[in-house]
Formats: sequence, structure tokens, C-alpha cells
Amino acid sequence: MVTDAQQACFEAGIKFGSLYHQFAGTPVSPDSTRSLEAAMAEAIENQPFCESVDVAIDDELVRAAIDHENGYTELTGSLMTVEMRIAYEGVTARTRMDMEDGYPLMKLVSVDE
Amino acid sequence: MVTDAQQACFEAGIKFGSLYHQFAGTPVSPDSTRSLEAAMAEAIENQPFCESVDVAIDDELVRAAIDHENGYTELTGSLMTVEMRIAYEGVTARTRMDMEDGYPLMKLVSVDE
Amino acid sequence: MVTDAQQACFEAGIKFGSLYHQFAGTPVSPDSTRSLEAAMAEAIENQPFCESVDVAIDDELVRAAIDHENGYTELTGSLMTVEMRIAYEGVTARTRMDMEDGYPLMKLVSVDE
Amino acid sequence: MVTDAQQACFEAGIKFGSLYHQFAGTPVSPDSTRSLEAAMAEAIENQPFCESVDVAIDDELVRAAIDHENGYTELTGSLMTVEMRIAYEGVTARTRMDMEDGYPLMKLVSVDE
Repeated sequence: MVTDAQQACFEAGIKFGSLYHQFAGTPVSPDSTRSLEAAMAEAIENQPFCESVDVAIDDELVRAAIDHENGYTELTGSLMTVEMRIAYEGVTARTRMDMEDGYPLMKLVSVDE
Repeated sequence: MVTDAQQACFEAGIKFGSLYHQFAGTPVSPDSTRSLEAAMAEAIENQPFCESVDVAIDDELVRAAIDHENGYTELTGSLMTVEMRIAYEGVTARTRMDMEDGYPLMKLVSVDE
Repeated sequence: MVTDAQQACFEAGIKFGSLYHQFAGTPVSPDSTRSLEAAMAEAIENQPFCESVDVAIDDELVRAAIDHENGYTELTGSLMTVEMRIAYEGVTARTRMDMEDGYPLMKLVSVDE
Repeated sequence: MVTDAQQACFEAGIKFGSLYHQFAGTPVSPDSTRSLEAAMAEAIENQPFCESVDVAIDDELVRAAIDHENGYTELTGSLMTVEMRIAYEGVTARTRMDMEDGYPLMKLVSVDE
């Protein structure tokens, strides 16, 4: 019914949706980007079949998004790039989120059986 | 590199991770289960390639989970079943979350090309 | 140490922070605003001392925020107004969130003992 | 209408509700508690009038909450204690969350004008 490669892709998607909707909206400033990146990566790496997660929040974009006197903004997809590697029964799925046409797009980069 | 079926499975996973981590932790009681089910389904149906989402929160399980005087609990996977249908370039992926061995498991039920 | 009025204000703040950070980031379109408003209000009304919550998501602002081909955006404070009434030991606290200088501000409107 | 002390308490409540509902549901294991504590504290310290946040996630409780083969659980109030200090116009509000009668309770500990 479902192949190992398809299952690997499903698992990869779960991790991406989880990461995004768990952490979107988090108050963030250039002072707190490093700790948030680390927590996001380590939290999602707990999930099954998740081999590695790299989160890079762009300090300059965060700074530019702070448009009020309070000195912080809320995390959204447009402020970060994310890369993940999922391994399921010998299949490796690589995924990446970055901006495309002004919209943060979650992409399935490759599936290697 | 990536087949339409694999992409459909990736999209299906994104929806499941999104739904779970957006709404887990929401205060819920038997008085608010219907509105939460509706909002969860309609929110995720906004996402691309998502044809249908059905969320059923179990009132009896919610009642049983209320173990303090405040009369509510927080939404977790053990209180609901979810079914989704994702369509991507002619491929239909069906997914389901329910309890297995005491743990809410997100499952890829079928992939039809 | 802590007066009933102060406790009422603390409780009022908890509800506002809860509502905002539980639901910010939810996918929303003009087709799903009503169900999301209802779920947000009913969820937070479950919390102790919370007498009423009114959430109004602005369909026109949601439409204007949809800047990509997918037809939805993510809920943020700039798309809604929220009013709450908290009652604690005879004290009523009224709160409101709306836009001020381009930033969604949570305000303590009145405290009546 | 509203005193500085009441406003300080309202601000204190916002921070607590924000912290809880932003991070509840995050996948956590004994390997990721330290990074999550740091991210939670630094994220909420970005918010206005928030002088300090201390989050302590209990590794033993996390270990005990892992009841399935995947090796992680989801963050809830029962796994952590949180202390915050809010300062507003010369008023300092101290808050604390810990377990009381099996339920994580957010408490306003003191208000000093």
C-alpha cells in the first residue's frame, strides 16, 4: 500500500509542520535567536526518524521586522531557513524551507532509497 | 528526483504536524469540543492540497481527563481522532491519527495514484 | 500581599497571553474566520474566572493579508480585536486588544471592585 | 481607572499565558531540556516590562512522562517550574508556576510598589 519512501516523506512533512506551528509566533529579537534556533532543532530531533534539524534565524531580517518600540517581533517563516534529514527504513528524505516568491515554502529536496 | 506520490505524502505530513502543534494545549471541555473541531478542520483545509480534514474530539475522554476543579483540560492527541485527504497532482493520500499502544499515532493509510 | 483587584488583573493577563500564543499562526482565510473566532472564545472561556471572550477577525484585513497564491494567511494580532471580561472575588476586569500605532496592544480597560 | 500595580499584574499574567501556550506541546526529552529552558526564558524576556524569566524543566519528571517507545514526551505545566519578575512604572510583580493539588498553578507571589 505505502512504500518506505512514501512513509519517509510523510514523516518528513510531520516534522516540518510540527516545527513551524509549534514555534511560529514566538517573541524573538537579535538577542534570543541563538537559543531559539537550538531549542527548535533539539525539540524536533526528538521526533521519530528525525536525524538532523538545522534552523538558521536571520538576525538582520529579525532586526528589520521589529517595527515597534518594544524591540522584538514574532517568529514567522520569512525570518528563517530550516533543513532536515529524515531516515526511515533505509530511505533518506531531505527537506528545506526558504523563501520563494515572498512566501516561505517547505520543500522536499530529495528522497534517496 | 521526487515523485508526485512522495510529494503528496510530504504534504500530508505537513498538515498533520501543523494541526497537532497548532492546537495541542488548547483549553477544552465538553462545552467547547464542537467549535474546536470545526476550527481545526477549517484552518488546516486552508493549506494547499488539503481536500478534507475531519476532527473528532471524544467528549467522554475529555470529561475523564478533567482531573481538577477548573472543569477543563488541554487538548492532546489522546483525546481525538483525525482523518485527512490530501490531493497532489492526481495522487490522493489518506491519513489518520488514532491511539495505538497508548500513543497517538499519525498514520499514512493509503496513497492512490 | 496581593489584592483581589491585582489578582483579577493577573488572571486577565493570563487569558490574553494564552489566547494570543495558542492561536497566533493558525492558517486563516475569509472562509474560516467564523469557526476560528468561535473556537478561540470558547476555548479561553474554559479558563478560571473568565466570564466572556469576544473575538472578531476582520475578513477584509484577512483578505488583504493574503499575499500569495495559496489563498490563506496566518493569524496575527493585527487581524483581530478581542474583548474579555474576567471576574475574581467580586472584581471585574475588562480587557481589549486592538491596533495602536500599527502594533496590536493588549489593554487593561477597567477594573471595577 | 487602572493603577500601576494593577497594570503590572496584568503584564505579569500576559507573560505567563504567553510562555505556557507558546511552548506547551513541544517535544521534549532529557537531551533537550536545557535548550528549551533557555529559549523559553529568552523569548519571553523580549516582551515589554519583563525583567527576568527562569524556567526549570525537571529531567526526572520528563523521563517518567516518556511512556512510549519514541523516547520523548510533550511539554506540559506538570514538568516545569517557572518564575518571573515584571517591572512596570516602579512596581515589581513576582510570579511563579508550580504544582498544587496535581495541577500546575500560575501564582502572583508578590506585588511591591
